[in-house]
Amino acid sequence: MTEVGIDGIEIWAGKLELDLAETFAPAQDDDPGKYTKGLGLYSSSLPDVYEDIVTMAANASKRLLERKGLTPDDIGRIDVATESSFDKSKPISTYVAGCLEQTFEGDFHHANKGERKFACVSGTQALDDAYNWIRAGRNRGRKALVIATDTALYERDDPGEATQGAGAVAMLIDEDPDVTALSDAQGFGSADETDFLKPNQQFPSVDGKRSMQVYLARMREAMMDFERNGGDTHPDNFELIPFHTPFPGMVRKAAVLGYRHCIRDTEIEDELAEEIGRQPRPEAFDDEEEYLDAVKEYTEALGETDAYADWYERTVQPTLAISEQVGNWYTGSVHIARAAGLAEALEEGRELSGRDLLVASYGSGAQAEIHAETVQPGWEDEIAQLNIQEQIESREPIDFEQYEAIHDVHNHDAETDMEPLTTPEGEFVFDGWGRMGERKYTYVE
Amino acid sequence: MTEVGIDGIEIWAGKLELDLAETFAPAQDDDPGKYTKGLGLYSSSLPDVYEDIVTMAANASKRLLERKGLTPDDIGRIDVATESSFDKSKPISTYVAGCLEQTFEGDFHHANKGERKFACVSGTQALDDAYNWIRAGRNRGRKALVIATDTALYERDDPGEATQGAGAVAMLIDEDPDVTALSDAQGFGSADETDFLKPNQQFPSVDGKRSMQVYLARMREAMMDFERNGGDTHPDNFELIPFHTPFPGMVRKAAVLGYRHCIRDTEIEDELAEEIGRQPRPEAFDDEEEYLDAVKEYTEALGETDAYADWYERTVQPTLAISEQVGNWYTGSVHIARAAGLAEALEEGRELSGRDLLVASYGSGAQAEIHAETVQPGWEDEIAQLNIQEQIESREPIDFEQYEAIHDVHNHDAETDMEPLTTPEGEFVFDGWGRMGERKYTYVE
Repeated sequence: MTEVGIDGIEIWAGKLELDLAETFAPAQDDDPGKYTKGLGLYSSSLPDVYEDIVTMAANASKRLLERKGLTPDDIGRIDVATESSFDKSKPISTYVAGCLEQTFEGDFHHANKGERKFACVSGTQALDDAYNWIRAGRNRGRKALVIATDTALYERDDPGEATQGAGAVAMLIDEDPDVTALSDAQGFGSADETDFLKPNQQFPSVDGKRSMQVYLARMREAMMDFERNGGDTHPDNFELIPFHTPFPGMVRKAAVLGYRHCIRDTEIEDELAEEIGRQPRPEAFDDEEEYLDAVKEYTEALGETDAYADWYERTVQPTLAISEQVGNWYTGSVHIARAAGLAEALEEGRELSGRDLLVASYGSGAQAEIHAETVQPGWEDEIAQLNIQEQIESREPIDFEQYEAIHDVHNHDAETDMEPLTTPEGEFVFDGWGRMGERKYTYVE
Repeated sequence: MTEVGIDGIEIWAGKLELDLAETFAPAQDDDPGKYTKGLGLYSSSLPDVYEDIVTMAANASKRLLERKGLTPDDIGRIDVATESSFDKSKPISTYVAGCLEQTFEGDFHHANKGERKFACVSGTQALDDAYNWIRAGRNRGRKALVIATDTALYERDDPGEATQGAGAVAMLIDEDPDVTALSDAQGFGSADETDFLKPNQQFPSVDGKRSMQVYLARMREAMMDFERNGGDTHPDNFELIPFHTPFPGMVRKAAVLGYRHCIRDTEIEDELAEEIGRQPRPEAFDDEEEYLDAVKEYTEALGETDAYADWYERTVQPTLAISEQVGNWYTGSVHIARAAGLAEALEEGRELSGRDLLVASYGSGAQAEIHAETVQPGWEDEIAQLNIQEQIESREPIDFEQYEAIHDVHNHDAETDMEPLTTPEGEFVFDGWGRMGERKYTYVE
């Protein structure tokens, strides 16, 4: 069967940089270590005045189509995943197509466009739908453009404020892909949860503690579902494990639990038994609390082992290299984790072709999805073209006053009139409002 | 190849009835004929105080699952299409699953849930995604639950106010379906349009004239795309043609244009030539305006022919039987058109098994989709179980003052405290707010 998966990736970060240790922490009267060590975050990417979810999506897509030598006729499907939409009816994909039609010959009039919403997991869901569309044989030789784009802002002084971020990931889904091929097997863990939501509001209501518990619980369910459906979860079989990364600290918590789950009844558990014992099994305990205490103790010991450290260092740590510099991009988060992991592996000269990734996506509300991807020959050339590190380095640093003003610019309920802090060049920009309240966009040479 | 399509349908209408001729027209100081003749609408279904897009969706789904003898384990995917969502992050499908888990044994923890948005076309898009998921072989023997649910309200005194409506359509998508099998061929016509949108607002901004033009233009593009991709469009080959029905008058306009398009270069055009001439061809005119005038004249004459009237009476008129009593249900609209057509055909004893429908979906912003469906053996039993006519007849009529109050109840920005006008029984109801601003639901015996 022909492989189907990700044929190309482009990433577009918001152009402003809020440094968490240098700028945010002092203004909040906080220890910088709360962010850099606790959350594992150094800075947030935020959009300038002329940027939003449409411009970031269109700019990433333009670069992707140009780099792959494609025209609108090659695209049969455009799906945008976002939880920052500004319209309850018209999908962001139509705005993105409208932008691209300003600069490409031809049009996307026969491409099926849409928008998918489920907190941060919908980027992966849109990828799945594109995969299914090709597997179902309905693509007529055309490719899908899947874009995850968000401006993840919180109420000022919300505990989530330090995890903010903004950016877009554009992915081309095709047969015989150049980056990764998706597994047929999937695992889902999904429940009606009230951990993080946006009831008729732009900024989220968050129960932070609950959200972390739900992330772990749904992830565990998804992992078990993936295993039941033939998915391999032996930790040695995966070169990289990109997780949804609201902040790297969350992934650290999830990784050790995932590792514990995956080594159970493997030779790894046996090898570690001498050092830390075997994993507690519920049947050995009369009392559930005692069992859970034992599990906790084992997990802590496991996290201190060299085996775990080596595995984490190889499969998880590389996936955090972008997130820690840009913050949470919601729908794009797991996709920058994949890109970061591949980019780090490329830099280290790791041979990944034919090897597998385990991708762990999550959205509050809540749903986790686990699937595998096989790295394809050609991945090095694709990943070498990413310029996200250059983007990160060339962001405009902002002071706290500028940050406060920029937060207001992107607050749908605030009236502001602020000059941009950077100068757009060769990109789509937001440039005002139409007569029906719609946002309008132009390409700036 | 195994057929994939709609295995069952249930419809849930809002419980209140606003009579357009008797109640709305006098209050607006309008001629009732403006609504009944012009728009082709008699009444609107509106939700009572305890109803919303979640309750209507969950109630339709509950009946569907029970009728088909299914449990949560049988469902691998729940997609909700809506443009009335009240949360920017958490999808409506999680609320619906949460409701159903109150009354069914088991849970939907391994079902992939989502939400799709593209004005009124996303109901069909969700159907397509479910179809692709099964065709791609990723369903593991399970079925998809696809729900189109909307409360279509306009600003008070907006020209669209008379076309309001509210209701949900739940559809089960499966292999070897009992109602219709979907065609592989699809046609899309899609452009970045500003005809109807909801920029950070609950009620739409509408350019009514433009929206009608865009509906027709995108539909024509979709038809041509469908033909290019092997779709048959000979008018005699379709037993029913369900259109997206914002109001029946729109469908009347679209139908004659569609008929003109489809009879071109067929024996029908030849047979009609004696009566009204042949269709004008652009190459026969030096001047475009003259050509368009000639086309208009031909179309008007075509609309007066017996051939057209017979075709319209057989394939389109039956599809309007629900819409004209309930108004526009946005994402559900084309799906109640299909159901209405099949129900009318059943009543007339038409033999449809193995015969085709042409389904014409549309969403502002804008995109049309054309696909075909083949009616399956067993359709009569399925359609006989619909109770939408009983629902329509047992709605609670409301006077204009009650209508004004109910409009406020469902206006997210208005504060109200109104007693329900009906008594819920054996259904899910909205019963208040949670601590994070979320809507909460209970099952009432």
